[in-house]
Amino acid sequence: MAERIDGHTLLIGLMAYPIRHSMSPTMHNNAFAKLGLNYAYLAFEVDNNNLADAVLSIKALDMRGSNVSMPNKQKIIPYLDRLDSAAEMCGAVNTVVNDNGVLTGYTTDGIGFVKALKNEGIDVSGKKMVITGAGGAGTPIAVQSALDGAAEIKIFNQEDDIYPVAQHNAQMITERTNSTASVHHLEDKDDFKEALAGCDIYCDATNVGMGKLKDKTLVSDPSWFHKDMVVLDTVYSPRETKLMQVAQEAGVNHVFNGLEMMLEQGAAAFKLWTDEEMPVDYIRNLLFSED
Amino acid sequence: MAERIDGHTLLIGLMAYPIRHSMSPTMHNNAFAKLGLNYAYLAFEVDNNNLADAVLSIKALDMRGSNVSMPNKQKIIPYLDRLDSAAEMCGAVNTVVNDNGVLTGYTTDGIGFVKALKNEGIDVSGKKMVITGAGGAGTPIAVQSALDGAAEIKIFNQEDDIYPVAQHNAQMITERTNSTASVHHLEDKDDFKEALAGCDIYCDATNVGMGKLKDKTLVSDPSWFHKDMVVLDTVYSPRETKLMQVAQEAGVNHVFNGLEMMLEQGAAAFKLWTDEEMPVDYIRNLLFSED
Repeated sequence: MAERIDGHTLLIGLMAYPIRHSMSPTMHNNAFAKLGLNYAYLAFEVDNNNLADAVLSIKALDMRGSNVSMPNKQKIIPYLDRLDSAAEMCGAVNTVVNDNGVLTGYTTDGIGFVKALKNEGIDVSGKKMVITGAGGAGTPIAVQSALDGAAEIKIFNQEDDIYPVAQHNAQMITERTNSTASVHHLEDKDDFKEALAGCDIYCDATNVGMGKLKDKTLVSDPSWFHKDMVVLDTVYSPRETKLMQVAQEAGVNHVFNGLEMMLEQGAAAFKLWTDEEMPVDYIRNLLFSED
Repeated sequence: MAERIDGHTLLIGLMAYPIRHSMSPTMHNNAFAKLGLNYAYLAFEVDNNNLADAVLSIKALDMRGSNVSMPNKQKIIPYLDRLDSAAEMCGAVNTVVNDNGVLTGYTTDGIGFVKALKNEGIDVSGKKMVITGAGGAGTPIAVQSALDGAAEIKIFNQEDDIYPVAQHNAQMITERTNSTASVHHLEDKDDFKEALAGCDIYCDATNVGMGKLKDKTLVSDPSWFHKDMVVLDTVYSPRETKLMQVAQEAGVNHVFNGLEMMLEQGAAAFKLWTDEEMPVDYIRNLLFSED
């Protein structure tokens, strides 16, 4: 039969807006097909207005679960039955699992970050980290790194609305994990430079380097980096960002874009729904081999 | 790309219970794939308990629509915004179309019956018909045949709970269309025999001839049939029912099972959702070529 969907196929959703251009449906459906798993992953245009009914539909249609993205990552929490600890600490959810009508919220972005580094032989445990950006990417990266044993996490953010939220999160990380987290002003270049000089891992979790900010970088002076550190930019379009070029110019040994993190956050959600390992190499070749 | 589902794919459902063994997902998804239409058709286990939330999800997930089957064909009506005339006369819906949040209920079973005959060069217009069974199949067949100009429709049913409903429906058909419809006792063999002798088209819309009733037929005496009539059994598993054997023994020229009706009711729903003709020959070959 040409088509694999039959009467037994279970639905998994992606609830966000805008969302039609997401690669996630292509990623997950090809992984299901490759492993012969009877699921279909579809994107739904869901914003805060229809979120409550959309979550209700996870139960009504006995969906296996859903991914959640902007603008619903925080707003979905009151509609869920349970949160795993990372999601609760982040105050954000990107993955919902439906176990017989009980909806549990997870966040796999941080898992994707830690796993992407692990695949390169790098363990966050015991490491000093610097993260720029305390938003939807930076927060789960900080929380998961802390849960996985990072020694120190310095979060740099602009003085904006989320700055006090980041301070609250850093305090919570320090209280609940063995990590020490602190929030710093991105505007304080001396502090930022000194933190980079003393860290093992630098992760840029802002959108600087993509879209309209494609030619921008938060670090333009190669001397701020040192060779034995890790530099990971969560941006993966373009594949090589301005920040990565500066890091390479500095001779940094481990420079990564966000592609593996993106694949691994998907693989972590895939595992939660199916209890199977996503065939990441297969998906990378299928979707990103043109790069 | 191996999989055709992407972020733009729109969902169409099938809400019924039990439903996992339905052929409809295979039928519609292969038709979508063949025509390059970006829809996915999935079955959902929905009974009267979760029907309200499931219908809400059609709007919340901006589904294009849904098929509806037992036990929801009648119960769904209060949750819809509009009914087409055949669905309203039947008091039953098998297809829902979502036009920007406005849900309209249709019944395509009768359309499938009329179309299946039309494909064989037989027009119900002006014909005298006998239908056995006034349930979920018999009612839309009677209503659509009346709307399409059948002269006279005699409905035979056992004296059971739906008998008075059938009487109400027959009266409505007579009042609202140019057909004259009446309900008769299936137990009255003389009346049934006489009606068959005087009719152009006989349709058995009961489940006699399938499952546990596989070896049964409501007409076992070939002399009750005449050669120039049409005999259509709505059963299509088995492909040749006991009733069809009796009709063939009687030399009836036009003897059909319910396969074409089933395909055409699906094609009619397909048309409502996509505004395209289902490739019925392709689907028949793909799904039923082993017969």
